[in-house]
Amino acid sequence: MEIDVAKVRHETPGCARVAHLNNAGAALPPSPVIEAVAQHLELEAMTGGYEAAEENQAAIERFYDAVAGLIGARRDEIAYVENATRAWDMAFYGIRFAPGERVLTTTSEYSSNAIAYRQRGVRVDVVPDGPDGTIDLDALDTELRRGGVRLVSLNHVPTSNGLVNPVADVGRLCRAAGALFLLDACQSVGQLPVDVGEIGCDLLSSTGRKYLRGPRGTGFLYARRDVLSEIEPPFLDNAAADWHAPDRYEIRPDARRYETWERYVAGQIGLGVAADYATRLGIDAITARIDVLASRLRAELASRPGVTVHDRGVLRAGIVTFTVDGRTPAEIVKAARARDVNVNVSEPRGHGYDPDAEEAVVRASVHYYNDEEEIERLLSVL
Amino acid sequence: MEIDVAKVRHETPGCARVAHLNNAGAALPPSPVIEAVAQHLELEAMTGGYEAAEENQAAIERFYDAVAGLIGARRDEIAYVENATRAWDMAFYGIRFAPGERVLTTTSEYSSNAIAYRQRGVRVDVVPDGPDGTIDLDALDTELRRGGVRLVSLNHVPTSNGLVNPVADVGRLCRAAGALFLLDACQSVGQLPVDVGEIGCDLLSSTGRKYLRGPRGTGFLYARRDVLSEIEPPFLDNAAADWHAPDRYEIRPDARRYETWERYVAGQIGLGVAADYATRLGIDAITARIDVLASRLRAELASRPGVTVHDRGVLRAGIVTFTVDGRTPAEIVKAARARDVNVNVSEPRGHGYDPDAEEAVVRASVHYYNDEEEIERLLSVL
Repeated sequence: MEIDVAKVRHETPGCARVAHLNNAGAALPPSPVIEAVAQHLELEAMTGGYEAAEENQAAIERFYDAVAGLIGARRDEIAYVENATRAWDMAFYGIRFAPGERVLTTTSEYSSNAIAYRQRGVRVDVVPDGPDGTIDLDALDTELRRGGVRLVSLNHVPTSNGLVNPVADVGRLCRAAGALFLLDACQSVGQLPVDVGEIGCDLLSSTGRKYLRGPRGTGFLYARRDVLSEIEPPFLDNAAADWHAPDRYEIRPDARRYETWERYVAGQIGLGVAADYATRLGIDAITARIDVLASRLRAELASRPGVTVHDRGVLRAGIVTFTVDGRTPAEIVKAARARDVNVNVSEPRGHGYDPDAEEAVVRASVHYYNDEEEIERLLSVL
Repeated sequence: MEIDVAKVRHETPGCARVAHLNNAGAALPPSPVIEAVAQHLELEAMTGGYEAAEENQAAIERFYDAVAGLIGARRDEIAYVENATRAWDMAFYGIRFAPGERVLTTTSEYSSNAIAYRQRGVRVDVVPDGPDGTIDLDALDTELRRGGVRLVSLNHVPTSNGLVNPVADVGRLCRAAGALFLLDACQSVGQLPVDVGEIGCDLLSSTGRKYLRGPRGTGFLYARRDVLSEIEPPFLDNAAADWHAPDRYEIRPDARRYETWERYVAGQIGLGVAADYATRLGIDAITARIDVLASRLRAELASRPGVTVHDRGVLRAGIVTFTVDGRTPAEIVKAARARDVNVNVSEPRGHGYDPDAEEAVVRASVHYYNDEEEIERLLSVL
């Protein structure tokens, strides 16, 4: 199965206006997502917010099946959360660390996560990169064998680089060592095959707005059923727990313990539709198409004098990072925008564990609905 | 200034379809809110999520002024949060309690908050009601004088009763005792004058979807600038704090420390528009109109044989609660729905500190855009 580019572009109204190469920021949503969100908001306006939710209960519940199906989970292992950061927070801040227990992460760890480690005062050891920039599996193995590792927490694809971490190998090592594995899949769900069973992660956080093409203000947490009972939600409301008596409550047994009752309902429906849309197209077809476009863009960039491509990794995803001699990334972004090409600047705050991190780079992130003409348009700006 | 009922009904598309008396659940939004949300979502779809936010920066920033203006706060004391529960959580879970310090609350405390007290293991003392069902101020004063009270936490208007707590008196007593005052204003903002200076609260949480007529999945936290520096957000991301070095970060000095960077942007814009809409109509006019409708409904209900009105309090808001002999609340709700009248069932889990709480009641909650015909329609169901 191959992506029918004309069809998916036709189903993406934004393609008529912009060459959107900022999919690692927030992708353009396809019509079914746009319409599902708009229709539910319309229903809320016409019949009331609670009444609309009752009427659309099936679509709301479909979210759990759609997301679970996409990542090989069970529906009761999925929580709808406002964004990937809060999804990650609900897991991380719920982990009880014994004194001296450590967290292992990578040089490309996302800054929000790094701040959270620091806020909780847990000891963090940064596993060095291998020669290709991905996590060094031998070094990870050594650190795990040293003991005291409660949590291995890393990204599948960093926010500022095209590399793809070997997460199934990480999962295998974590299981052998008995360490929890929390995967930040913010940039991979929707563009790469992500199967929680194959990866062997215990917890996975992701967002709606990026490669899944869902609405802004949506995300989800996967929590493996065997571990969620030991990870108490750091906040509880009356949907996450039942209040039996003034001094007694009971937390839900499933992953919805990490949710709040009140939510952006239309967004939840939209994210479910987005997950189904990706599944229908086929993740393998999506990955293949992104690889064609990203490889072409990297090759073209690398062939231009004065342009440096910064992506590392052997396996690479849709994020293409580069700099241009004599022009700041902000200048490139502005010049591109003037030609209706969306790219953005990736600031180094996203990878503060990496002493070699660039000052800032241009990030062009392609999706399957992009085409060669759009890539040419970006290149013409340089 | 009086409410122009014909005009506000014309500006509320849902009035054409339903008699919406479930405003304490989620109100029908007015056209300006509906359109602001729809337009931003459309812009996101056509030009990209980040690019749309850049283009609509003024509308996003307007949210802070609109909400601050509505409640007499400064814009840097307002945080945009997913819902009232999370707003409350960001404040409550950020308060450091010394061993033995107590929380004082009321019999009508919302169940989510009660669960949170229990989760943190703080001691809670429930201040008894006065004869009219509102907090007994003498009893509160006595408890405060006993000492050890770190926090007084209560609602302005409970979820299941028409009563209005005397919050300015509570604020005065809290200040005198040096206790923090966290006000759950979920049911009052948008229907009653709420001025944080007059009330004297340190923290206030509220929602978008109820009397403010904003979108679902939106809320806000007010944190008085003098106290927010001592209330560390229980979660931090890279917008709430700057990451300076692997082991050093700095939390924002303003209330946005309680936000996440990623959010339902269209909802934020919509909530700002909703706050401005309420301000434009005038809160006093809104309160007066709600009082006319709620008083009429209560009087009519009370005059019917077999109907019991459960509202207490001297000052009463738009929430009208009642039961009908021989019919369950669920039956009433269903019968009303069959005539396109929206009311709902209020379950007792919302007031578990109150041993006298009813099993369940019908909650009919009126807003200024409701009219007499709609009230008649509800009465005709009984």
